Formats: sequence, C-alpha cells, structure tokens
Amino acid sequence: MTPTALSDLDVAHRMADAARRAILPHFRSAGLHSDNKDAEGFDPVTVADRAAEEAMRRILTELRPQDSILGEEYGQFDGSSGRTWVLDPIDGTRAFISGTPTWGVLIALSDQNGPFLGVIDQPYIGERFVGTAEDASVTGPMGTSALGVRATQTLGEATLFTTFPEVGTPRERAAFERVATQTRLTRYGMDCYAYALLAAGQCDLVIEAGLQAYDIQAPIAVIQAAGGVVTDWQGNPAHNGGQVVAAATKDLHQAALERLNQ
Amino acid sequence: MTPTALSDLDVAHRMADAARRAILPHFRSAGLHSDNKDAEGFDPVTVADRAAEEAMRRILTELRPQDSILGEEYGQFDGSSGRTWVLDPIDGTRAFISGTPTWGVLIALSDQNGPFLGVIDQPYIGERFVGTAEDASVTGPMGTSALGVRATQTLGEATLFTTFPEVGTPRERAAFERVATQTRLTRYGMDCYAYALLAAGQCDLVIEAGLQAYDIQAPIAVIQAAGGVVTDWQGNPAHNGGQVVAAATKDLHQAALERLNQ
Repeated sequence: MTPTALSDLDVAHRMADAARRAILPHFRSAGLHSDNKDAEGFDPVTVADRAAEEAMRRILTELRPQDSILGEEYGQFDGSSGRTWVLDPIDGTRAFISGTPTWGVLIALSDQNGPFLGVIDQPYIGERFVGTAEDASVTGPMGTSALGVRATQTLGEATLFTTFPEVGTPRERAAFERVATQTRLTRYGMDCYAYALLAAGQCDLVIEAGLQAYDIQAPIAVIQAAGGVVTDWQGNPAHNGGQVVAAATKDLHQAALERLNQ
Repeated sequence: MTPTALSDLDVAHRMADAARRAILPHFRSAGLHSDNKDAEGFDPVTVADRAAEEAMRRILTELRPQDSILGEEYGQFDGSSGRTWVLDPIDGTRAFISGTPTWGVLIALSDQNGPFLGVIDQPYIGERFVGTAEDASVTGPMGTSALGVRATQTLGEATLFTTFPEVGTPRERAAFERVATQTRLTRYGMDCYAYALLAAGQCDLVIEAGLQAYDIQAPIAVIQAAGGVVTDWQGNPAHNGGQVVAAATKDLHQAALERLNQ
C-alpha cells in the first residue's frame, strides 16, 4: 500500500499504535523520572511523553508531509495543506505518574473550522475511542461498539465529570460548583477519559478550565461524532482551549452554560 | 482436585473469576438500572452487585462451608471456623455506573486479628492485585509483577489519593485538606483502585472516611503484604471501617496522622 492510499483514520491508528509502543514500557516503571516544566505548579513531563510525540511525528513526516503539526512537547510545524494534526502524547501526565489508567493519547485532525477527526487512546487498558464524520466507535477489552451520547436533558439527571478541584481559578471553581450542586452525581479526576465516557453514553457533562488546544481537539471530534456538544463557557468554539463544557444534549449544554454564567 | 485441596488463595481466585463473569455483562450496558438504597444520598445498587455477591457466596458455600461471610449486599452468615470472608462485589458503585475503570471486586479473609488475605480485582482492565503472607503481586495487561510500596517518608514527596470531596463530613474534609496542602500531588476519585496503586508503588498515601469493613479489609491485606501501613485516623486497626489512612512507610503514616489530628 502506498502512503497516499492510507485514509486519515488509518494514519491516526498507526500513530496511536506507535504511541502505545513508546509509552507502555514507561508506565508504572520504577525509574520513571518526571521533570517539572512549570516553575510554580506541578506539570511533569516524562520520557514517555517525548518518545510518543516523536514517534507520531515520524509517521506524519512520512505519510502526511504537507500537513501542519501542533504537539504539546515539540510545538508547531507549518505545512502547506491547511490541515493540522493536533497531538497530546500523554494527556493527564499527573494520572500517568500516579499509575491510574485515565490518561490518554490524543490525536486530532483539524482545518479552519476545527477538528473533524479525533482519537482518544488508553494504552494500558487497550481501549481506543474514535470519532470522524463517518465513524464513532470504541474498541477495547470487550470488543468494538458504537459510541453515542445519552439523551439526558436536565442537570438533575446528569452525571458530571471534572478535573476540578485540581485545575482552575477560584472564580472558575465557583462557577463549576454552581453546576455541580445541581447534578445527580459529580465525579473527579478522570482526565481525558471523562470525554471518552461522555461519547460512550456513560456520563452527561464534562466541565474544565485552563485547557490547551491539544487537550481538547480530539475530545471535541469524538464527542461531536457521538452526537454531543462541546463549546467554551460562552457557547463559542472551544478548539483553541480555555474553559470547556461538553454535554450530551443541547438542552443540557444550555442548562450548564446558564449556571456557569450566573 | 477435591475442594479441601484448594488453598484459600485458590478459592479467592475462583470467587474473583466468578464475580468478573457476573459483572462484566452489565458494565456500561445501556439498560443498567441503579436503585437508591440511601434515601438521602446517592448510593446505587445494581443487578451486577447482587449477581456477583451471589456467585461468590455460592463458591464459599461449596468450598468453605465452615467460614463466616460478611458481604455488602447480603450481610452476615455465621460459620464455625472463626474465619470470615469479607466481600464487596463492586466497591465504587458510583464509578461503575459512570463507566470508569476504578471500581473493583474486594475479597478479604480475616480472623480475630484482621484480614490476612486480600484481592482487589478490576474486571474491565483484567487486573488483579493479591496480598497474602506469602504473596504480593499484580496480574494485568502487562503480565505479573511483584507489589511493593515506595520508600516515601515525607508529605512533601508524597502523592495522595482520596475520594474526597465526594465523601466525609466537613470536619473530616478539613482534616484531609490539612494533609493535602502539604503533599506533592493530590488525586481524586479513584475508589478502591487507589489502594491498589499504593501497594504497587505508584502513590504514597490514601486518606478516606465513612468506610465499611467490606470497603477496607481487602485493601488492608494487599497493602500490608506490599509493605505498607493502614490504620484509622487515630493509628488503631482500621478493619472495621470508618476513617482510614494508608501509607507507604511508617514515617509518612506518622506525618499524616499528625496533620489529621492537629
């Protein structure tokens, strides 16, 4: 098969496979060393992050040399196609360094309108969530099944996920709490896995703040493919990051926006 | 092999296998129905909980008829041996109904001195943490490896896990926060999986409150087998539940107790 015969999704699968191979030898390894990128907070970067992004970029250099790349670890490469691969080799580095299986490899492909292909991969579980215009599915320990959001329309019926209280300013946290107090159940600490669960119809809302483009573009594509809604806290496109609210339905999304902005 | 030729650990593995078979068809199933046991809070009980405990009790009735049983769903059975199997078919029901792979099947075997055998099983990942006087190991997607706690001695180096802010009284939460503010990293929402990660040397502290005996006996046995320390917040045995602090080392445990009781 020549490189150009591969679909974008084929390329994304190859990248996710390569990232798995690069990362898993380091997961829960005793000698894992985490640097501290952020002088004030705790933002660890590991050998695994870098190895995975390098592996994914090598595949793009070979198979999609005209496309741009935006990656968490190695920044921007400007291509000529008008399309950008947006990569987070390990989203949830704090989860990774504490051994929890809620981190993921995030791969998105976007144009000027935002992401239209997304992959959320959890290598340890062996679970891959995919969203494109044609496909919304998860393949994991129990086989392959279709993704699809729930029909939840009110906060009182909703299960909410967040990375608060770990992220966000006090003001953002207060806004989050205005929503959280209205929901049926609030769960914490799930990192990018929360977006995958929303697409899989297991939860109804995800609210976060302080995100980067590479944190959210793959979740946007997966959730939109599954029928959900993702915007910033003002209802505008969220693919540049910042404050994000993802919801199973338009009604639920609207209810969350109203509480966030009270 | 006659039933009596099976070791206690063999019996525990059979129970964990049976619980997996009973639970997995219900995990992330669209039709999952959760009753509400607790009129005030949200304490869902599912068909899967009950089916798993029934399956485990059937094995004990056949293979260990003289032993007592204490299970979350079906209560106490009084045997004559002085030994008690302590069962939580799905610890982390909130995790279960929201699709996260952080719930577990908990199996402990105890005598008057507390638990001496423990199993923490995560069926979806296919991961089983075992602790006995002779064995401390985990078998999962990457094979089998020994469990062992880290050498972390100070709060400033420690990664802390908790189910706060989901559980506990305001006073308990304030005590927890006194510890959390001193740690290197605090992670939320991992349910029983946090104890497994402590035994696996991936985190250093777990602090919780409001636990039942069946929530904590298996974690105690697994963590003690891996070299860690588990007590209540006063430093006394925790196998009857309540407020629990689990630590990788004695020094770290002492430092946490001091902050909890300031």
